Amino acid sequence: MKTVNAYAAPSATEPLIPTTIERRDVGPRDVLIEIAYAGICHSDIHTVRGEWGPVAYPLVVGHEIVGVVTDVGSEVTLHAVGDRVGVGCMVNSCRECANCLAGAEQYCLKGNIGTYAATDLDGIITQGGYSTHVVVVEDFVVKVPEAIPYEAAAPILCAGVTTYSPLVHWKVGPGSRVAVVGLGGLGHMAVKIAHAMGAHVTVLSQTLSKADDGRRFGAEAYFATSDPETFSTLASSFDLIVNTVSAPIDLDAYLSLLALDGTMVNVGAPPEALPVHIFTLFGNRRSFAGSGIGSIAETQAVLDFCAEHGIAPEVEVIDASQINEAYERVLASDVRYRFVIDSSTLS
Amino acid sequence: MKTVNAYAAPSATEPLIPTTIERRDVGPRDVLIEIAYAGICHSDIHTVRGEWGPVAYPLVVGHEIVGVVTDVGSEVTLHAVGDRVGVGCMVNSCRECANCLAGAEQYCLKGNIGTYAATDLDGIITQGGYSTHVVVVEDFVVKVPEAIPYEAAAPILCAGVTTYSPLVHWKVGPGSRVAVVGLGGLGHMAVKIAHAMGAHVTVLSQTLSKADDGRRFGAEAYFATSDPETFSTLASSFDLIVNTVSAPIDLDAYLSLLALDGTMVNVGAPPEALPVHIFTLFGNRRSFAGSGIGSIAETQAVLDFCAEHGIAPEVEVIDASQINEAYERVLASDVRYRFVIDSSTLS
Repeated sequence: MKTVNAYAAPSATEPLIPTTIERRDVGPRDVLIEIAYAGICHSDIHTVRGEWGPVAYPLVVGHEIVGVVTDVGSEVTLHAVGDRVGVGCMVNSCRECANCLAGAEQYCLKGNIGTYAATDLDGIITQGGYSTHVVVVEDFVVKVPEAIPYEAAAPILCAGVTTYSPLVHWKVGPGSRVAVVGLGGLGHMAVKIAHAMGAHVTVLSQTLSKADDGRRFGAEAYFATSDPETFSTLASSFDLIVNTVSAPIDLDAYLSLLALDGTMVNVGAPPEALPVHIFTLFGNRRSFAGSGIGSIAETQAVLDFCAEHGIAPEVEVIDASQINEAYERVLASDVRYRFVIDSSTLS
Repeated sequence: MKTVNAYAAPSATEPLIPTTIERRDVGPRDVLIEIAYAGICHSDIHTVRGEWGPVAYPLVVGHEIVGVVTDVGSEVTLHAVGDRVGVGCMVNSCRECANCLAGAEQYCLKGNIGTYAATDLDGIITQGGYSTHVVVVEDFVVKVPEAIPYEAAAPILCAGVTTYSPLVHWKVGPGSRVAVVGLGGLGHMAVKIAHAMGAHVTVLSQTLSKADDGRRFGAEAYFATSDPETFSTLASSFDLIVNTVSAPIDLDAYLSLLALDGTMVNVGAPPEALPVHIFTLFGNRRSFAGSGIGSIAETQAVLDFCAEHGIAPEVEVIDASQINEAYERVLASDVRYRFVIDSSTLS
């Protein structure tokens, strides 16, 4: 066991505080990572505040982790000491179910083992990346290409792969008409990646306040959803809508923007049930889908894709002492576009 | 103009009554059909009762029409006098929009012209098949193979194509795990067609009362949805669920039955908005879709498919005088599995 510095939530209602946690000994197939940066995801906030169900405290969150390998187990073949690596939203899965065997371990039928607040196969509750070190089994660790700076790589591990996965699954490419709802951490990556795939990208945001940014990231069009005319102007015009907004939206209004055989895929997850009219889906044979993070293979693929296309998230690097303030700014949508914790400030 | 016998709804609340209506003169591209049989679809009842919006009265419904060609216009090339033909849910479309040009005229962006209660391109409100004759433009008329008896062919024009279209679109074939929700007019055709496509078919019905029928139609399994255990037993086990039920259902419960990348497609249409949890869609990357009738090409394809595979709907032939009684039996789910009006009883 190794005692390491971390920032933890003592309860659902208290601020996060500096503390220490135990990391397991490096097993035969484990990799010890010295964390360089960890991104702050909206999911971190939902989870520590118990909004997605009860969790055990104290809890360390963070699932956008990059760093350097400082030790490996005796049977490790995928990584070596000194490698630049990353860990995303999951650190294990059952490896036996149909979905795991199909390479879709994010949809493990027993539930993938999340990077934090999940019970790992050894029975221990996982603790996330707001920490100086983490121990992860080698095949849930991916390689960070040299072309991507550490701090910029972190958000690719969740925001990047979570948007990349549905863009690949729904076959976005040259000529695809893609709308991205919300220009936050996930949304800005969706725009950059879809643009790099050759799609015609439209941002649908509450206001036009980030329109210049949206165009800079690669969007050809930018519409305010607070303007009802947006929905008549854009009716039946998209092949894929990627909804990154976790707040409830008027599903029928957004679904009506889909062209023939179009799909709206939610990567944001409001906890409430949202009403939908079947008649909206009848028009243009529309589909409404969900997509959760991405597979390990896709996580590696999106890192390689970003390196190849010169894509990086827009990040604001903060000290660990600023985490609680950053949470408030995330909730106020006052982040452009991802906070990343400099893990050296945890020492 | 030609005056023909028909059965019409005088208002949303009165029974249907015998009457006469006018059919247009046979134009250069029109076909005059002497109707042999017309099926009774649940949509007919929704429409005449104004449940899907206001309609003009008197109204003749019926969009499962089969008969023989008795006259053709001077420019008609697709059909000839004496041909066995059918007309389904639409009799025209704009022919110009992206969807029409893509051969998906059922999704015409200006709205396809329904066989009844729609305003045709000539400005006249269409009147359906509870009648002795109908005049339809030739390319919205399909050929009825000799192998299918007239009365059995009628329900293929709506119930058949409405279930065939999504089965084809979602690529059902050998090895597909398909569930059919509801064993009524549409459901029993979905079972027969999916079985003929090589799928493993499960029926999900409120009770087991029609289980023997379901197996006879080709289902390998039959579960009662009134039994909560059904939903745990069948969790994550279907590639495609075809929901033929027009009444509200618990979407989350049914969606949870989808395996990785599975789709639930609604062909039934409750007017109410139904609540859905996005988290249900996240699991297994599930999709929820709608599918409305089918294209003209698919309507011809399903007739040919049924002829090739020896499939026919189960029908109960009635006289026109029994239409109102049949409506009550449809609403009471007391039909196995489609009422078909013998149009000779309208004369």
